[in-house]
Amino acid sequence: MCKTITVIGGDLRQLTLAELLCSDGYEVSIFGFGKDSVSDKYNVLSQLSEIKDSDIIILPMPVTTDTINVNAPLNNEEISLKEVAKYSVGAKLILGGRINKEIYEIFSGIKCIDYYKREELMIKNAVPTAEGAVEIAMGELPVTINKSRCLVVGYGRIGKILSKLLDKLGSDVTVSARKYSDLAWIEVNGYNAVHNSDLSYVVDKFDVIFNTVPALILDEDILKRVNPDCVIIDLASKPGGVDFEKAGDLGLKVIWALSLPGRVAPITSGKIIKDTVVNIIAEEGV
Amino acid sequence: MCKTITVIGGDLRQLTLAELLCSDGYEVSIFGFGKDSVSDKYNVLSQLSEIKDSDIIILPMPVTTDTINVNAPLNNEEISLKEVAKYSVGAKLILGGRINKEIYEIFSGIKCIDYYKREELMIKNAVPTAEGAVEIAMGELPVTINKSRCLVVGYGRIGKILSKLLDKLGSDVTVSARKYSDLAWIEVNGYNAVHNSDLSYVVDKFDVIFNTVPALILDEDILKRVNPDCVIIDLASKPGGVDFEKAGDLGLKVIWALSLPGRVAPITSGKIIKDTVVNIIAEEGV
Amino acid sequence: MCKTITVIGGDLRQLTLAELLCSDGYEVSIFGFGKDSVSDKYNVLSQLSEIKDSDIIILPMPVTTDTINVNAPLNNEEISLKEVAKYSVGAKLILGGRINKEIYEIFSGIKCIDYYKREELMIKNAVPTAEGAVEIAMGELPVTINKSRCLVVGYGRIGKILSKLLDKLGSDVTVSARKYSDLAWIEVNGYNAVHNSDLSYVVDKFDVIFNTVPALILDEDILKRVNPDCVIIDLASKPGGVDFEKAGDLGLKVIWALSLPGRVAPITSGKIIKDTVVNIIAEEGV
Amino acid sequence: MCKTITVIGGDLRQLTLAELLCSDGYEVSIFGFGKDSVSDKYNVLSQLSEIKDSDIIILPMPVTTDTINVNAPLNNEEISLKEVAKYSVGAKLILGGRINKEIYEIFSGIKCIDYYKREELMIKNAVPTAEGAVEIAMGELPVTINKSRCLVVGYGRIGKILSKLLDKLGSDVTVSARKYSDLAWIEVNGYNAVHNSDLSYVVDKFDVIFNTVPALILDEDILKRVNPDCVIIDLASKPGGVDFEKAGDLGLKVIWALSLPGRVAPITSGKIIKDTVVNIIAEEGV
Repeated sequence: MCKTITVIGGDLRQLTLAELLCSDGYEVSIFGFGKDSVSDKYNVLSQLSEIKDSDIIILPMPVTTDTINVNAPLNNEEISLKEVAKYSVGAKLILGGRINKEIYEIFSGIKCIDYYKREELMIKNAVPTAEGAVEIAMGELPVTINKSRCLVVGYGRIGKILSKLLDKLGSDVTVSARKYSDLAWIEVNGYNAVHNSDLSYVVDKFDVIFNTVPALILDEDILKRVNPDCVIIDLASKPGGVDFEKAGDLGLKVIWALSLPGRVAPITSGKIIKDTVVNIIAEEGV
Repeated sequence: MCKTITVIGGDLRQLTLAELLCSDGYEVSIFGFGKDSVSDKYNVLSQLSEIKDSDIIILPMPVTTDTINVNAPLNNEEISLKEVAKYSVGAKLILGGRINKEIYEIFSGIKCIDYYKREELMIKNAVPTAEGAVEIAMGELPVTINKSRCLVVGYGRIGKILSKLLDKLGSDVTVSARKYSDLAWIEVNGYNAVHNSDLSYVVDKFDVIFNTVPALILDEDILKRVNPDCVIIDLASKPGGVDFEKAGDLGLKVIWALSLPGRVAPITSGKIIKDTVVNIIAEEGV
Repeated sequence: MCKTITVIGGDLRQLTLAELLCSDGYEVSIFGFGKDSVSDKYNVLSQLSEIKDSDIIILPMPVTTDTINVNAPLNNEEISLKEVAKYSVGAKLILGGRINKEIYEIFSGIKCIDYYKREELMIKNAVPTAEGAVEIAMGELPVTINKSRCLVVGYGRIGKILSKLLDKLGSDVTVSARKYSDLAWIEVNGYNAVHNSDLSYVVDKFDVIFNTVPALILDEDILKRVNPDCVIIDLASKPGGVDFEKAGDLGLKVIWALSLPGRVAPITSGKIIKDTVVNIIAEEGV
Repeated sequence: MCKTITVIGGDLRQLTLAELLCSDGYEVSIFGFGKDSVSDKYNVLSQLSEIKDSDIIILPMPVTTDTINVNAPLNNEEISLKEVAKYSVGAKLILGGRINKEIYEIFSGIKCIDYYKREELMIKNAVPTAEGAVEIAMGELPVTINKSRCLVVGYGRIGKILSKLLDKLGSDVTVSARKYSDLAWIEVNGYNAVHNSDLSYVVDKFDVIFNTVPALILDEDILKRVNPDCVIIDLASKPGGVDFEKAGDLGLKVIWALSLPGRVAPITSGKIIKDTVVNIIAEEGV
């Protein structure tokens, strides 16, 4: 527990992470949060070179948006990833969110772990994602979630948490999936189960549709049958799961809601990162 | 069921009411919704005088905001309450929301009933109110409702529904009340129970406080102890239950959220009015 | 808190009460629990006359089953109520469950309070009652409670807790009541609402019927329409709410389940009595 | 849908299966249920040889208890498996529960499928298993499940359903597991999460412990620390998960509860078998 950790860049999530690590007894420094980041808990570094005594460097989520500088929206000046790498040669561990090949190369020689790929982080992040999705639905729908008819496409992490949440709010929940075992779980949990291949028969019955699958399931054929007042909320990353162009042609309202945890609940999000970072440190024995 | 009903003025709630009454088999006319209110279900009147054949006239909620004209935000022209009264002399029943003494006088001689005072409407309206309150909290808090620490002041209609909703969302719910029997219900329902007189001992522990009591419970003494990051959402009508001035002096964030049902869920709201109107018609034997 | 309390007679509930009062800091003696009642917490009296220094005497629930002796099933010898009264003249308070006129007369001159009539006890007792009812249903039904169709007659204390419990277990819950406001609550809580006067139209649809109303609602006309495989569980006291003779003639299975809290959860029951006793002591300022 | 199905042997589950298959439109015969099995829905065969026209033969769960005759507790005479095989040579499919090597050999040459190994059956069976476990706990504990402290060892199918059920009943639920991702799910679902290797630190805190893991987790070291009033309910098959001998030496109450679905909810159980059988028939394209 005598490790020194430096948190570089990011937003309120990373500041929360720094604070919680202090409360756990770590010696924590931060860099790259502008001038308002003073605290009596952690040490605020004034120069990047001061990170060189850290055992562990924690970069934000995502580490970078341009592959050159650290993603540090609260800082006035840019923080070059290569500079960070230069001063980190003595570190035992670099942690960051969404580390791609280029970043691994910049830090070659130092052990780098992507906390965003950890199963426990993805599971816990499904809670703020589901709450954010419900908040959007509450804002968009002219009816209450209670007694509304909701469809959740997909029964992975987000599908599981979101359907449970909607059920608890009193809505009439239908979940679609592909595997018999998922359909059995959906039924056993008290929701209506629909096989993905039967979606077109039921898709006209909903006030709101949440997509959680990053594959084109809500295609033109399905969209054509959707009730025109229905709101579609797409929670799937990368390509998304809705044919946005066709939806637009059909006059359907589609909201593509990405990165909800950091946006709707940055402090909870920071706490989740912290729980994951602590697990990684324990596993790595740093 | 051969009664003719005219719905005059109001917003989407009253249009929903009109539509649902049609679906129930009533012959429905509307007046005062501007030009976009065409429908193949109900009859759109072009002149106020055409209401004179109606058995039942339904006014909006509230009936009026100036005690002179019907509250008709979707209409371009004003609709005088006295004119409505003149053409309603043949009606068996006038229904409206928040009918005050002046309005009763204008319609003297015709049976007038305030649907907003019905117990069943107030109970059902607690659902959109609670959802609206949760939506506000979701938007304001940097943490998820899940695992947040919530205080609900008061265990009346809204307190009951709201505490249940927060509990289902996974928050740690405390409810304050005055009566031993309410405290027993609170405990039996699985929440933390606090007597109103002990609020000052616990009030520093919450991420969000919802007030539902229309009396000054959150006074200066209590507010002083509130956690500075706490969000206070006041759902109580008329005087409210928070000393807003002191809260401002203390730098606390207070949101006074009134008339949530019509704002957050107008269609659900219209459905609730319709359920109540049907009960009244049955009871009155019109 | 320097009061001395003596607990006389009863079963495991009263022993639990005695133990919990010790943990709260009271000086507690017990009498009438046979020889196995030794404890290092409370004082075991060997003679009834030793109760004469007690500030508060607590009698069991019910106080007596024959109006002559204390209800003391764990004791070998009888304990005369009149003897208890004789040695209690110096006491400030006598507490007991189901105190009738004869008992009040025996203790005339001393303040006697029936803890069984307290609202908070009746509310909290609804939890073990509802659990006991569910346990009986689980044992009787060849189907799971999950997805079974349940009718709860009446929406008082037990009706509220029981319908919530059944709903949580995943059954399809219908609740019948008489008042519009109760029907609104039933609907708002997500159950099917039926007016008592419409019971005969729906009563054939259930796997199990729970009656909570102490009045003959399930009469011959209703019973005739009940599904022959349906199990009827009557939780109503005194006359019960089922025409048992007619039910027998029709071959229906009826279980009259009384006094469930003490039978299914004596320790929880003792804790509930203790909570109530502490409230009474506080209110009486003894 | 013009297939003919014969159901041979078993108990109320298999009769329920036969009835439900009729309702689905199949032509169904039964054999081996004694004389009381008359029904106007299915055809009751009087001789085993009459099964020879069946497309599908459904054997009970388990198929046999002696590897020689069909498990047919409601029949007076024995039904030899070899005889069944002899008359089944024309069948397209043999279905049964717990088909071992010997049985596969007896039916060699005909396609045999074990419905008991299907994932969807095991998931759905977790519901009656969990209800049965709760019913046992309700009967054994002197406290209500509500507010009791429960430990569920293992977070597989039964662990998931059981912990959810206990949570809904208002108990304070702790679940132990081995994988970080399971622990994250446990936390996200609102229960206390404990790593299996930390069980000994918390195991003294519970009113009831449910084991769902078929491996010796509750060994002597753990059992020694269990609260002596705690009830242990072992739901794990084959070797069980409790050291029964040591538990006995320590005076702990252990209940080994096997095959709950068929015992506590035979009709629900029959329905689950039917759902699974229908899936198999669809997949096999018989």
